[in-house]
Amino acid sequence: MDEEPPPSDPITELITTYNELNSSVISEITGNISPLEFMRYVARNRPFVFRGGASEWEATQTWNVPELKALLKGQSVNVAVTPKGNADSPTRDGDGELLFVKPCEEHQTFEEFIDFVSQQGVRVATSATSSEKEIRYAQTQNDNLRNEYATLFSHVERDIPWARIALQQVPEAINLWIGNSLSTTALHKDNYENIYVQIIGQKHFALLPPLDYACVNEQELPPASYMRDEDGILKIVKEGGEKVPFATWDPDREGNETVYSKLATPMRVTLMPGDMLYLPALWYHKVSQSCSEEGICCAVNYWFDMEFGGSLYPLCNFARSSGLAVLKT
Amino acid sequence: MDEEPPPSDPITELITTYNELNSSVISEITGNISPLEFMRYVARNRPFVFRGGASEWEATQTWNVPELKALLKGQSVNVAVTPKGNADSPTRDGDGELLFVKPCEEHQTFEEFIDFVSQQGVRVATSATSSEKEIRYAQTQNDNLRNEYATLFSHVERDIPWARIALQQVPEAINLWIGNSLSTTALHKDNYENIYVQIIGQKHFALLPPLDYACVNEQELPPASYMRDEDGILKIVKEGGEKVPFATWDPDREGNETVYSKLATPMRVTLMPGDMLYLPALWYHKVSQSCSEEGICCAVNYWFDMEFGGSLYPLCNFARSSGLAVLKT
Repeated sequence: MDEEPPPSDPITELITTYNELNSSVISEITGNISPLEFMRYVARNRPFVFRGGASEWEATQTWNVPELKALLKGQSVNVAVTPKGNADSPTRDGDGELLFVKPCEEHQTFEEFIDFVSQQGVRVATSATSSEKEIRYAQTQNDNLRNEYATLFSHVERDIPWARIALQQVPEAINLWIGNSLSTTALHKDNYENIYVQIIGQKHFALLPPLDYACVNEQELPPASYMRDEDGILKIVKEGGEKVPFATWDPDREGNETVYSKLATPMRVTLMPGDMLYLPALWYHKVSQSCSEEGICCAVNYWFDMEFGGSLYPLCNFARSSGLAVLKT
Repeated sequence: MDEEPPPSDPITELITTYNELNSSVISEITGNISPLEFMRYVARNRPFVFRGGASEWEATQTWNVPELKALLKGQSVNVAVTPKGNADSPTRDGDGELLFVKPCEEHQTFEEFIDFVSQQGVRVATSATSSEKEIRYAQTQNDNLRNEYATLFSHVERDIPWARIALQQVPEAINLWIGNSLSTTALHKDNYENIYVQIIGQKHFALLPPLDYACVNEQELPPASYMRDEDGILKIVKEGGEKVPFATWDPDREGNETVYSKLATPMRVTLMPGDMLYLPALWYHKVSQSCSEEGICCAVNYWFDMEFGGSLYPLCNFARSSGLAVLKT
């Protein structure tokens, strides 16, 4: 889209003022962080990366494919299966209609899952021509580390003390993520304060502040899921039910821009094993990943309920509805 | 104005969402407050009153008219003089034009000033029919407690430790206010985090969050000042120079409403001697006062620079420009 953003309308001013007052380079913390220091970032709704903040965790020190297999021996796990590593993302079906497509969820033994993921991860890293039929990702965001993967939970921190003390609450959910470089999480936002901890491999984040609503081209998408047909091939199947409001712009690809998208200055950060990311509530994030030599990427995240009191939530909501109203006209 | 606010436009939704998620009754703190607790209020941009937080200060314990006279003997002070206690406020001149009118600033000895203020304060409190020609108020907001009134400074806290530690800065300005019940400060906002401390008498605050911009009817007012004519009578004199954007709605009076004003739910709080108020950056506040038995009201406030990084400032600015744009059409 070649159209320029309107030079002096309130939305252009909002995005450019924010960009002038805030760096698009993420703050880095090393050493230690106190609850008060953390609260200063929460107050500004600004992310930071805490390098090495989890480097001493038992998970960071000991997890690898054989160790995880031993710990989870014989357990069945929920796996998101997609043809392109595109779980929960805006995808066009055969008719070219843009849908919000959820993965095919299947249960398999952890051994079968991790062997598939790691062998694929190594194959993709070492071969220029591999063509993969399906991508698997353990990504149930339902507090799985305290449930499905409970045997691993003692290897990570129960809560994040500086966040628990500052926010005066224990985590609402703690999630484990295991996949390989073929899975990407599409640009989206969550109503949570998020502490993201890299254990194995790398995660690459592209972050946008909540007030960039008008850049992300939120659309109401019909819901759908991948399902296997009789030959086991993954097909998109539309569901009934309410449409899903979802960002359709990808900051790394042409297409689906709004007139404001070019004003966005995504903040980019790569997490290495042992690094922690504070991803503030309502920030848009797109997440891709790189594998360890074993062909896997593993992370843990802690969701804390966000504060709906105060100004941030109503004001972000206002930026969203104002953006939608302007883009509709 | 009988017109109803548009039921489903983004500004109506902004104000009503905020009111649903936030009480219009102020939080009260007693006992103690830590930097971290304070920072949680800063993060939400929400006020609180700290009852008795300054009750042990030497100022609170010892200041009265004779003591202040002794401390400031022979000193000349800057006094704001107005006919109605309306320093720095939107006022109509003889032609009915609404102007931003500053007070007549005069120097007099502290003894002369405090005798005038306190005798008037007692007279007004005890007589049903007094008619006052002029109102005096010591209200220079230029760090006066560390300059003009420096001899009093050792009687108050140098900074507010829980605020200094949380905000990582010393106060930008510390101001002393001395007046009587006839002075009122018109609804306005400041780009500062403000800790307000009551020493003598009472202050009555009406507070509105920054996102209520569309309620306050900001207008561009020509600047003016009170000046004495040859008979010593205070007259409004227009100045040249840029117009001043200023709220013209008074939450306690009919007139100057916008279509959104009825959505506002002012938060009201009265400070007693020794109470402290955290007045967050950008909050609109109207301040009136009641006198002690000596006919005066005295307060001290600490201004800390606000955080322009993060989301709050750009989003509040956006609410303002959106409100102005909608009200203009």
